[in-house]
Amino acid sequence: MRVTVLGGGVIGLSVAWYAARAGYRVVVVDHGSPHGGSWVAGGMLAPITEAWPGDEDVLALGVESLELWPEFARALGVALSPVGTLAVAVDRADVEVLDQLCAYLGRMGRSASKVTGRELRALEPGLGPVRSGLSVPGDVAVDNRALLRALREACAGNGVVFASDTASDTASDTAPESGSESDVTVIAAGAWSRDLHPALRDVIRPVKGEILRLSARPGALPPPRHTIRAQVSGRPVYLVPREGGFVLGATQYEAGFDGDVTVGGVRDLLRDAEVVWPGIAEYGLAEVAAGFRAGSPDNAPVIDWLEPGVLAATGHHRNGLLLAPVTARRVLTLLREGGNSR
Amino acid sequence: MRVTVLGGGVIGLSVAWYAARAGYRVVVVDHGSPHGGSWVAGGMLAPITEAWPGDEDVLALGVESLELWPEFARALGVALSPVGTLAVAVDRADVEVLDQLCAYLGRMGRSASKVTGRELRALEPGLGPVRSGLSVPGDVAVDNRALLRALREACAGNGVVFASDTASDTASDTAPESGSESDVTVIAAGAWSRDLHPALRDVIRPVKGEILRLSARPGALPPPRHTIRAQVSGRPVYLVPREGGFVLGATQYEAGFDGDVTVGGVRDLLRDAEVVWPGIAEYGLAEVAAGFRAGSPDNAPVIDWLEPGVLAATGHHRNGLLLAPVTARRVLTLLREGGNSR
Repeated sequence: MRVTVLGGGVIGLSVAWYAARAGYRVVVVDHGSPHGGSWVAGGMLAPITEAWPGDEDVLALGVESLELWPEFARALGVALSPVGTLAVAVDRADVEVLDQLCAYLGRMGRSASKVTGRELRALEPGLGPVRSGLSVPGDVAVDNRALLRALREACAGNGVVFASDTASDTASDTAPESGSESDVTVIAAGAWSRDLHPALRDVIRPVKGEILRLSARPGALPPPRHTIRAQVSGRPVYLVPREGGFVLGATQYEAGFDGDVTVGGVRDLLRDAEVVWPGIAEYGLAEVAAGFRAGSPDNAPVIDWLEPGVLAATGHHRNGLLLAPVTARRVLTLLREGGNSR
Repeated sequence: MRVTVLGGGVIGLSVAWYAARAGYRVVVVDHGSPHGGSWVAGGMLAPITEAWPGDEDVLALGVESLELWPEFARALGVALSPVGTLAVAVDRADVEVLDQLCAYLGRMGRSASKVTGRELRALEPGLGPVRSGLSVPGDVAVDNRALLRALREACAGNGVVFASDTASDTASDTAPESGSESDVTVIAAGAWSRDLHPALRDVIRPVKGEILRLSARPGALPPPRHTIRAQVSGRPVYLVPREGGFVLGATQYEAGFDGDVTVGGVRDLLRDAEVVWPGIAEYGLAEVAAGFRAGSPDNAPVIDWLEPGVLAATGHHRNGLLLAPVTARRVLTLLREGGNSR
């Protein structure tokens, strides 16, 4: 059976790789945007610190996927950094929020422990004057760009054909460059999926995020060893360790496909990060970028048949990297059941 | 006579263009750094607002060069923007500084007039709460990258040969790729000139500057129509209008050839600019860059013979674009006199 995957981000490539290994003939069609969510992303695999009451389905899916990640990473030859997450409270209100999150995670049977400000600074001497926090040792991080490279290589090594397509054809119009018609099309184009099938039009929306890459310079404090998360002035900010520096994210805008990095976004990220990690001024600003998350009404992805011959694997919002293995596995199951394929 | 110009920035290209038009056979050798001062620069041609008591020689040279600019730009087909400069006072101390500058310029016979805060806001509605300022209507601006492109084309059109050289050979070792030995070498490599001749070693030093390019976005206030200059918290900041946005500069560091853009530099530029021009948050951050000015002990350029067959045209600090025509003219005079060439 021939499978055409629309989208060359982490979801599309993971689906393509799984399908190719299972014996399907796979073509990946990608429009090559520099704003792809998984290219711009920070690389946290953090179902627990992304969790919040009401998102139980996403938490469960994230925990399921995190269990698949070690084997997924091993097969790709990609390193997982066992960084753990420290969610830190900057003010009194944050302490209450983290208390609620800790209680919620306890009820869900998830491991997270409260730590004092003093303990936090022992773990991360570069932290600013934080009050207290949560330690979530199970969270890991991955270099998202190394992952995408490894996925492309793994796909190519399993016979996946890559086609480029800058037009946003609807799924039923799309024919890969090879000219062969596919038996199943998988829509895995992140935020752009909304334009690829009528059933996704009102379900998927772009949620822009701006993100910075900071590099340690001579004289700068070393980067954090843990992923650090906080809220500053109501804005979420995270620092994810990366070779030679860290990734600093992320803003959130719901304003369509506007890919500009804004002055206000960069200003807020730097300002907020400096509260949490005062040494950032001495870092190099190696990159500023904006990407589009694929938002959905309930923050959960859409992984299902849309019509005979057309599958969706999109709407992963902030969790595309985390949910890649479980998504690819589910798509493979749907392909194999095939009851709904044409 | 064969002339080898070391350096492909605005000084090197201007010298090469003048020399080629005068009949010399010219080779330009450039090492292709992304941190060249004239590539990164803002493009102000502002001898007066760069002036300060004690720098009379540089002011006189700048005024002389500004008079050459209209014909220089016309011959290159490059547009000069007659933006004028508004130097604005943010606090009471700034008012006194601008008063001193105004009195000094008056003594020098230069035109600059005091304007009230109210008049400033009438001229530039996007200004923040500034107290008063100086208006210098004679200052112009040029798109420095359009200028460099035009200079390269003009050079090529006049038979200049371009060679690339990534090594930092000393002038006496340098042979262009054509293999022909040159009669005169002109060292015009900006901050890198210090490594090209022993006589420049303790004279020229790199002065790093970070600069941002901001683009107007839908909903953002229009960019300034004038070049705006201010001091905020003791740090100089300028906004130079550019097609579709403006250039925001510039930090100053004396720390060798460190080409990183730092978080602290970007943070300060954005913070200071927002005081002067509060609407910047809605702009796009199109580019962050760092370049090296060629500092000299007295802020004046070195345009002279260093030894028989070796000329210097470097040390232009913040004034490389402004001083390009007068520098090229002086070098041409030195070449023609030739008394000191080998």
